[in-house]
Amino acid sequence: MARIVMKFGGTSMAGTERIRRVARIVQRQQAAGHEVAVVVSAMAGETDRLVNFCREANPLYDPAEYDVVVASGEQVTSGLLAMHLQALGCKARSWLGWQVPIKTDDAHAKARIEDIDADALMASMASGEIAVIPGFQGVAPTGRVTTLGRGGSDTSAVAVAAAVKADRCDIYTDVDGVYTTDPRIVAKARKLKNVTYEEMLELASVGSKVLQTRSVSLAMKERVRVQVLSSFIDDDAPAADTIPGTMIVSDEELEGLDMERQLITGIAADKNEAKITLTRIADRPGAVAAIFGPLAAANINVDMIIQNIAKDRGETDVTFTVPISDLARTQALLEERKDTIGYYRMLANSKVAKITVVGVGMRSHAGVAATMFRALADRGINIQAITTSEIKVSVLIDEDETELAVRVLHTAYEMDGE
Amino acid sequence: MARIVMKFGGTSMAGTERIRRVARIVQRQQAAGHEVAVVVSAMAGETDRLVNFCREANPLYDPAEYDVVVASGEQVTSGLLAMHLQALGCKARSWLGWQVPIKTDDAHAKARIEDIDADALMASMASGEIAVIPGFQGVAPTGRVTTLGRGGSDTSAVAVAAAVKADRCDIYTDVDGVYTTDPRIVAKARKLKNVTYEEMLELASVGSKVLQTRSVSLAMKERVRVQVLSSFIDDDAPAADTIPGTMIVSDEELEGLDMERQLITGIAADKNEAKITLTRIADRPGAVAAIFGPLAAANINVDMIIQNIAKDRGETDVTFTVPISDLARTQALLEERKDTIGYYRMLANSKVAKITVVGVGMRSHAGVAATMFRALADRGINIQAITTSEIKVSVLIDEDETELAVRVLHTAYEMDGE
Repeated sequence: MARIVMKFGGTSMAGTERIRRVARIVQRQQAAGHEVAVVVSAMAGETDRLVNFCREANPLYDPAEYDVVVASGEQVTSGLLAMHLQALGCKARSWLGWQVPIKTDDAHAKARIEDIDADALMASMASGEIAVIPGFQGVAPTGRVTTLGRGGSDTSAVAVAAAVKADRCDIYTDVDGVYTTDPRIVAKARKLKNVTYEEMLELASVGSKVLQTRSVSLAMKERVRVQVLSSFIDDDAPAADTIPGTMIVSDEELEGLDMERQLITGIAADKNEAKITLTRIADRPGAVAAIFGPLAAANINVDMIIQNIAKDRGETDVTFTVPISDLARTQALLEERKDTIGYYRMLANSKVAKITVVGVGMRSHAGVAATMFRALADRGINIQAITTSEIKVSVLIDEDETELAVRVLHTAYEMDGE
Repeated sequence: MARIVMKFGGTSMAGTERIRRVARIVQRQQAAGHEVAVVVSAMAGETDRLVNFCREANPLYDPAEYDVVVASGEQVTSGLLAMHLQALGCKARSWLGWQVPIKTDDAHAKARIEDIDADALMASMASGEIAVIPGFQGVAPTGRVTTLGRGGSDTSAVAVAAAVKADRCDIYTDVDGVYTTDPRIVAKARKLKNVTYEEMLELASVGSKVLQTRSVSLAMKERVRVQVLSSFIDDDAPAADTIPGTMIVSDEELEGLDMERQLITGIAADKNEAKITLTRIADRPGAVAAIFGPLAAANINVDMIIQNIAKDRGETDVTFTVPISDLARTQALLEERKDTIGYYRMLANSKVAKITVVGVGMRSHAGVAATMFRALADRGINIQAITTSEIKVSVLIDEDETELAVRVLHTAYEMDGE
């Protein structure tokens, strides 16, 4: 007997028939003797519908009210899944974020989980009741509803798994594992049997839709065993967890599992960043802080930063990227502070894409970046910005060249499967 | 300066443009110097959509999970209206049922409000912040979400008005007041300037869509001044509260206001009842209790009851009505208890309508019922059941004859306007 947290995404929850199928997958785990908690997303498309209402209400909406509106999507699916489980004869009940409670900070629309009081939850699970928990939501110290930001349901699942000391956190998605890259872009993409927390972290942070960044980072910190697997299995198929997905493991485990690993594990493309350039900023101490201080205070995540120094004028252009969802707020904040920062013009471009190659092997190998730049240059793809870490290299390119760049790199690193 | 609770229904909240219009109506009240709380319904159609998901999940759904699902509709509109008000420059925030808190009993899907802790709400309103409260929802002693049953948002509004000691509770609807009957059925229906709590109670309880029964009964008990008025006014029109709607007043007030009132105030039709007949029940003490005890325990409201006694057999047929929404549950409950109750067959018919004529004048006049029966008989309309109270007479007829019956009675009581 094990204690398992299962998580189902929006595609798996889209409508009565799909929720019924999820209920059967969950029932099977319970029938196998496990204690089960399930974390669910909103129905596919629902969060977008709700976000759209918020934007129409007020483009600079109050994130606390935004949370009230968008948290409703997961509330609905958690209640419905509990009903479907009951229809199958299982004991089940929903636990809203504030009921568990899942305590977060008060950074509305991108809150962080601070603590989960899992006593009531564990007592319920121990009594044979399946706990159904809406992902993505929590409650602030103020008692108001918070959400964790888009894709936060994965984070909820891992946090719940850590809190109830689960043996495994199974993330059911519309893919059957983690691939070397998006199989819709590269037909020869291969499924990975294992990937390390750090690799998954880099892949998630740069647009791989499989898992959300924070969930991976939390899993790494809390040492939660995470498995990615498909929710689209036949009813007659063996239990889902007997079909191998991708296990996310630590570096040490990986060495035991997979000696013959390739240099590069995966390639991801991210179209959700926008590029902002502030021109002719005085090249003096404090100028950059005047830009990024207020953005940090507003919880806007700045990713790539490039500064072009024109020594002769004592001025500089600063280019950086922010999530597209924060673009309007970023522009408003910087417009307000135009005089304080002292820039000449603000240029924004959301038609960019970030391409990232990831691999733990990179640490001990030279030439990864060189291969990347050469392969892209050979196809005339212009690199607008670069960032690197120990296990990844990212470049910013024109959005129109995304698919081409991914294919070129998949071949250049000899990752193409059969 | 007054303290006002305003309530807007689903049609007024259906989509961005309509919510924006509601925000302007609310803003105008605040600009006039009033302290304002707003109670909102879900967008028109949303609750039906959610209820449908519940029915698909499990026809005999768990009402506690049903509440989790359907309460989301009002949660969404309360957040959105707060945003729209903020966009107009007003201070505003949403207060979910459990946040106020609006404490109810634990009769899920038809909970009753037991207490509203209005301190935080009143402090917020006194500070110039508009409180936006989702109607229809509360929180049970167990800490779980409850709903008040369909149309419960009116009840929420009156309860909030009582709790914050409001000077007035303005119920904005898609009609501009209370009419002698549904103007869509009878073109010559007239708008009433005043109607008593008791009359409104009878009209509401028998299908007038203007106000929900419990809201009127609560207003009567708490002496909340309620006004029904239209939310569909032009932006350029004078403030909505200067256009006369219908005021709901006590008997004593009415006597001062309207000496020349007609005998019958209104006629309502209700198609939301279903008729159940249990045949050949033993005519012995306790037999009826065996039927209605379990229904009461399951919070199913039985309305009309008729017992046909066949003395020769020592058996009886019992016919009664329940809300259509409870029909499946009622049938399941009675099926389970077939042996205990000892009936022969259970017959159900949801194609019935209840027609009710209401008037405080009825107390001092004979002949109201006689006029009714004669007028219906003249048109060949068969009466299946009858109930009366001091100020009303109700008859159950075939659903197909609803509109005909209402028109015939409106004319028979000389209520037709110009």
